[in-house]
Amino acid sequence: METITREAKVRPSSPFLKASSDSASLQRDQAPDRKAMGFVLVHAGAGYHSESKAKEYKHVCKKACQRAVEKLNAGALAVEAVTAALVELEDSPFTNAGTGSNLNLSGEIECDASIMDGRSLHYGAVGALSGIKNPVLVANRLLSEAQKGKLSAGRVPPCFLVGRGAYHWAVDHGIPPCPSDQMATKCSLSAYKRNKRKIELAEKVECSAGAQVKRSRQSSGKVPQQNGSGSLDTVGAVVVDWEGNVAAAVSSGGLAMKHPGRVGQAAHYGCGCWAENAWKLNPYSIAVSTSGCGEHLMRTMLARECSASAQSEDAHQALLDTMQNKFISSPFLASEDCILGGVIVLRCCRCADSEPSADLRALLVEFLWSHTTESMCVGYMSAQDCKAKTHISRLPPGAIAGQSLAIEGGVCRLGSPVD
Amino acid sequence: METITREAKVRPSSPFLKASSDSASLQRDQAPDRKAMGFVLVHAGAGYHSESKAKEYKHVCKKACQRAVEKLNAGALAVEAVTAALVELEDSPFTNAGTGSNLNLSGEIECDASIMDGRSLHYGAVGALSGIKNPVLVANRLLSEAQKGKLSAGRVPPCFLVGRGAYHWAVDHGIPPCPSDQMATKCSLSAYKRNKRKIELAEKVECSAGAQVKRSRQSSGKVPQQNGSGSLDTVGAVVVDWEGNVAAAVSSGGLAMKHPGRVGQAAHYGCGCWAENAWKLNPYSIAVSTSGCGEHLMRTMLARECSASAQSEDAHQALLDTMQNKFISSPFLASEDCILGGVIVLRCCRCADSEPSADLRALLVEFLWSHTTESMCVGYMSAQDCKAKTHISRLPPGAIAGQSLAIEGGVCRLGSPVD
Repeated sequence: METITREAKVRPSSPFLKASSDSASLQRDQAPDRKAMGFVLVHAGAGYHSESKAKEYKHVCKKACQRAVEKLNAGALAVEAVTAALVELEDSPFTNAGTGSNLNLSGEIECDASIMDGRSLHYGAVGALSGIKNPVLVANRLLSEAQKGKLSAGRVPPCFLVGRGAYHWAVDHGIPPCPSDQMATKCSLSAYKRNKRKIELAEKVECSAGAQVKRSRQSSGKVPQQNGSGSLDTVGAVVVDWEGNVAAAVSSGGLAMKHPGRVGQAAHYGCGCWAENAWKLNPYSIAVSTSGCGEHLMRTMLARECSASAQSEDAHQALLDTMQNKFISSPFLASEDCILGGVIVLRCCRCADSEPSADLRALLVEFLWSHTTESMCVGYMSAQDCKAKTHISRLPPGAIAGQSLAIEGGVCRLGSPVD
Repeated sequence: METITREAKVRPSSPFLKASSDSASLQRDQAPDRKAMGFVLVHAGAGYHSESKAKEYKHVCKKACQRAVEKLNAGALAVEAVTAALVELEDSPFTNAGTGSNLNLSGEIECDASIMDGRSLHYGAVGALSGIKNPVLVANRLLSEAQKGKLSAGRVPPCFLVGRGAYHWAVDHGIPPCPSDQMATKCSLSAYKRNKRKIELAEKVECSAGAQVKRSRQSSGKVPQQNGSGSLDTVGAVVVDWEGNVAAAVSSGGLAMKHPGRVGQAAHYGCGCWAENAWKLNPYSIAVSTSGCGEHLMRTMLARECSASAQSEDAHQALLDTMQNKFISSPFLASEDCILGGVIVLRCCRCADSEPSADLRALLVEFLWSHTTESMCVGYMSAQDCKAKTHISRLPPGAIAGQSLAIEGGVCRLGSPVD
């Protein structure tokens, strides 16, 4: 774990400078609508994105950003916009969430998803959920139902439901069921058959080598967890709306060939996503969404750690330190030789130099991503942009996945109606 | 939320001083075995413990302490001792964990449990698990299996399983199934029938009052979440062993009449329990277990917050501040008018004044509990004690549950073999 790759915060060739200047030019060219303000950053998984499929991943991210911005332009709050982005990411057969999710050891699809609203600090999550096309809609509904207060006879509403119970709750709340076989794709089915054979072969080899070699760490015949295009983990998004509220969401089909009932970080509070509006002790509103190996992200509580550290002055340095000290070198993962994950972070505050009315001042948005996986596909767009920017971030040549990290980001000033 | 009750850390009438002196006298009277060192603190739920049933609760806590100490005296590490304590707590029909658990809305028992090992920092958890008598045994087995490394074909072992998948994993790993009707008690069944009627009545009243009054906060006709002896939430334990390793565990049947599939804090990383051995940045080994309303404990991540704050010099003050600022007054629960929870904390370090060999130095153990519920039943015992002490901590007269807190604790010096 010695090699740490530090990429420049904003390099001349980086797409972020363009993003900032595009937004700036748009602010000059058009008189923005009061509600046409906000920003979305999405990811289509930290893992390995082959060059051959790069176009599809970028296209999915672009569409997800557009969906969120459509909502923002219609006056929706962050939590609604982030849900719209997630639905688009889940519906893509190329991502490991919703349709096209990895199959578990029994050949079934079981999804995890969660959402957090930085304004109310409410949270909704589902785990090991089968038979629902868009798990994020159930998480979002749990969040909004919990915000309404107690249930009949003073019962506390749930914020986290799993399995059949989650399915029935969803259907009872008007979310339509979807047969699991409609969510499987040709690609996910063929990956399942391939992985099944690999496991059978590995267990045969281990068995013949004697009971004492029950556990194999050999690189040959591995089920691709993070390095096959069919098994990328987790999609997510972070949004700030025109009021300055932040929201974050995450959705995942989980690791390929996971045990039925396994729940990963995407359903786990503080691990899959985090969103907190600025308040007296926290100067910044921050939203975070993670991707990668669920167990690594859970045990390091990466989303919450990134959010907490990003309250310091230099968000880029804070994220770098967190990825290095609280993830790659975390004492919680001391026994792991390959720490796989990625994170997107959105941080914003009101610009001090603009109109003093809190409701009208411009927003300064910093957006960052970092990953220890081979690559991470991201997209981002402000409500004032015509189209989304997309980018596949990769570790530099020679850097070792699971031991090195890449970090990139940009800054965008969102104009206020009085600009 | 103005009224804060601060009970003296160690009052002359407190049982803690006795605990310390009992241990001290034992250390003088007998030459302790190398492995007869360690300490256990258990709780049988934060809620309301009627005077009439006080004897039973205390008896359960006493037996749980004895089981843990038997393990410690046999040379077991903390994680094994804490599991033994939990099995005893789960097996009691008086606690809301394992046998005697609250029934959910469908009349089924679904349990949550988790365990954390401060030495390896590994974690195992099960959620919404039916048909297993001792959920903590499954959590413990998940923890120990994960410590063995990767599964066949390089797959990452799960640390959190739910529902049917968790049940099948448990049975496949030799944990015997148990029909759910054997885990229900006369008391839990009659509470279910009573609560069912209350909900039907409440919904009838709400329905006739019009659709706009769908949610009721009226105090009449409530399902007792924390104030009926049949619905106390969550049991737990914290242990330090002769090597100075800490471990924590928690187990719960969840809130009465919860929705099927609802998972509470007892299965949630950082919320139900936490254990971290001392290491370079943390001078103390700390173990925490929580109890109360799962949603409140989850959204405040109370176990991890208590652990982090207890690294400061004054553990009592740190716990008081955390319960006040990060729980009762938490911005995450701003919309709640009654914040219900309890926590037990064990903190230890090697005594600076004893034998310098790290392996042999005496351990200074501080043990604390705090709750915002009417009462909390605890028990504690050192490996050198003949029997456990038990205590039902209550809010002082006039203090309002959910808005006030009680805090108590003690100190115990555990002798080393060379004393």
